[in-house]
Amino acid sequence: MIYIGIDVGGMSIKAGAVDADGNILFKHACPTGVERGYGAVIQDIAELGISAVKKAGYTMEDVKAIGIGIPGIMDQRSGVVPFCTNLAWHDVPIIEEMKKYTDVPVFVDNDATVAGLAESVKGVSAGCRDSVFVTLGTGVGGGVVINGRVFSGAHGVATEIGHMVTVDGGELCTCGKRGCWERYASATALIREGRRLCADKPDCALMQAVEGDIMKITAKHVIDLAKAGDDDCAGIFRWYIHHLAVGISNLINVYDPEVIVLGGGVSHSGEFLLNAVRAALPKYVFFKSMPCARIELAQLTNDAGIIGAAMLGR
Amino acid sequence: MIYIGIDVGGMSIKAGAVDADGNILFKHACPTGVERGYGAVIQDIAELGISAVKKAGYTMEDVKAIGIGIPGIMDQRSGVVPFCTNLAWHDVPIIEEMKKYTDVPVFVDNDATVAGLAESVKGVSAGCRDSVFVTLGTGVGGGVVINGRVFSGAHGVATEIGHMVTVDGGELCTCGKRGCWERYASATALIREGRRLCADKPDCALMQAVEGDIMKITAKHVIDLAKAGDDDCAGIFRWYIHHLAVGISNLINVYDPEVIVLGGGVSHSGEFLLNAVRAALPKYVFFKSMPCARIELAQLTNDAGIIGAAMLGR
Repeated sequence: MIYIGIDVGGMSIKAGAVDADGNILFKHACPTGVERGYGAVIQDIAELGISAVKKAGYTMEDVKAIGIGIPGIMDQRSGVVPFCTNLAWHDVPIIEEMKKYTDVPVFVDNDATVAGLAESVKGVSAGCRDSVFVTLGTGVGGGVVINGRVFSGAHGVATEIGHMVTVDGGELCTCGKRGCWERYASATALIREGRRLCADKPDCALMQAVEGDIMKITAKHVIDLAKAGDDDCAGIFRWYIHHLAVGISNLINVYDPEVIVLGGGVSHSGEFLLNAVRAALPKYVFFKSMPCARIELAQLTNDAGIIGAAMLGR
Repeated sequence: MIYIGIDVGGMSIKAGAVDADGNILFKHACPTGVERGYGAVIQDIAELGISAVKKAGYTMEDVKAIGIGIPGIMDQRSGVVPFCTNLAWHDVPIIEEMKKYTDVPVFVDNDATVAGLAESVKGVSAGCRDSVFVTLGTGVGGGVVINGRVFSGAHGVATEIGHMVTVDGGELCTCGKRGCWERYASATALIREGRRLCADKPDCALMQAVEGDIMKITAKHVIDLAKAGDDDCAGIFRWYIHHLAVGISNLINVYDPEVIVLGGGVSHSGEFLLNAVRAALPKYVFFKSMPCARIELAQLTNDAGIIGAAMLGR
């Protein structure tokens, strides 16, 4: 038996035929065309998936399940997507819509959850029963695997780890609360602190790197300068690592996984980030002499969405 | 088949014979006698459990499993209790020790975890697959039930929810970190804030209630005065409810359970606490229009330890 894995983003739909071990047999993609409404997008999802199976040399008789990763949340009980901002979806009955095109069981989950599952099947957390995947991007997302299965909670709103408050009364979050972890551990946080640095110190190396245009500051600028030994950016980086480690220690306190996988844009800074987090973490861990989660970088990149979605139905 | 449930505390060992529905058939207790060392304590645990079965009119042939709740953590992989401060245990091979007295399978877990399991079988969260039990006592402990099973993580250090940082840089915790949730949501936090009030305002109602001795301040004093309309204590209570709600919203973001059960000493303030938390929570929840965990008070009191321990092996 094989599986269809579909990775739906605001820009493109990627679909693949995937074997039971998480190997992609065939994959292709098309533009999402969000403006057409959910009916047309879901039709494309189904057709792209079905054609991937044919192009891989199989028939739909061989397909055990279809998995779909979305940049939003899924209510598993109702089969409805309550919110999906990037797709402009609100209360979309995705399971019912998919039934128009196929009788194969359909599983839907959040994209960070799906990426975490992919890592636990084919990536850095392969073989682990319990893992937490943390995307350090525009926000901070989470994908939790417990006992080898994705964990989404009773109402599909679990693993909103970016909105765990770590600094009560701190930075205002897009969600309306103050001090959510993602205000301190996302790429956006590094950019905000970089802009503040440039406002305070207009002759700093970061300002020079972006030729005086603070809107051009990226997380990579800040981290690269920290790595190159610039004191100002090294200060921001230490601040960032502190907050990243505080949140990771919270994840250890609540989930106690075997491994915590760092993914998303900030994780592309690689060993420099990884070594700093690993060095900082022991100070924040509750049981100093007990084993706890090891910290790793995500291994899968573009294919994580397809592989993880496919594995939802395994 | 029946089960043996044992609740081990620093002062007493309670043992019961319990049926598969969580009903206690017979129970009794003895002093712990911590100073005798773990060997003698574990012998008493075994003998008290075995005699409870006989006194309930059964034989050990009828017993499917023995469960033990301890005020510490358990390493499920090694069968060893790494730490248990109240029993002065360090690296105690409890499973191996129990084998000296019985061949029945033995399960051991943290007491808050066990109390949470008891609530999910016979208490306020009965029938729920996913629940989080929060003890608001000297510290803040957690008991997490996922899919009807206790969740203790990969290394037995999960559900240390009291040491989740919610106020980075805040109050110093006994664990060495700053801003752990239990510094804000425990009975100890209410006492600390009450003492601070009395130091700042020696003629306050709280100071009068304890006749000028701030060492006599309890969480109950503060809450009772808040309930009676004292402005100073009402201010502390609002502060407490804010921090309690912040942490509960974090639990919703990571576990998304069906119900969050409040237990421990502070929960004895009953509806006054419950109504305040329920009123505050919506402001802190990420998905405003989605259903999320309902908040309830624990129903079981003294028997939770025996019932929950027994259900570990169900």
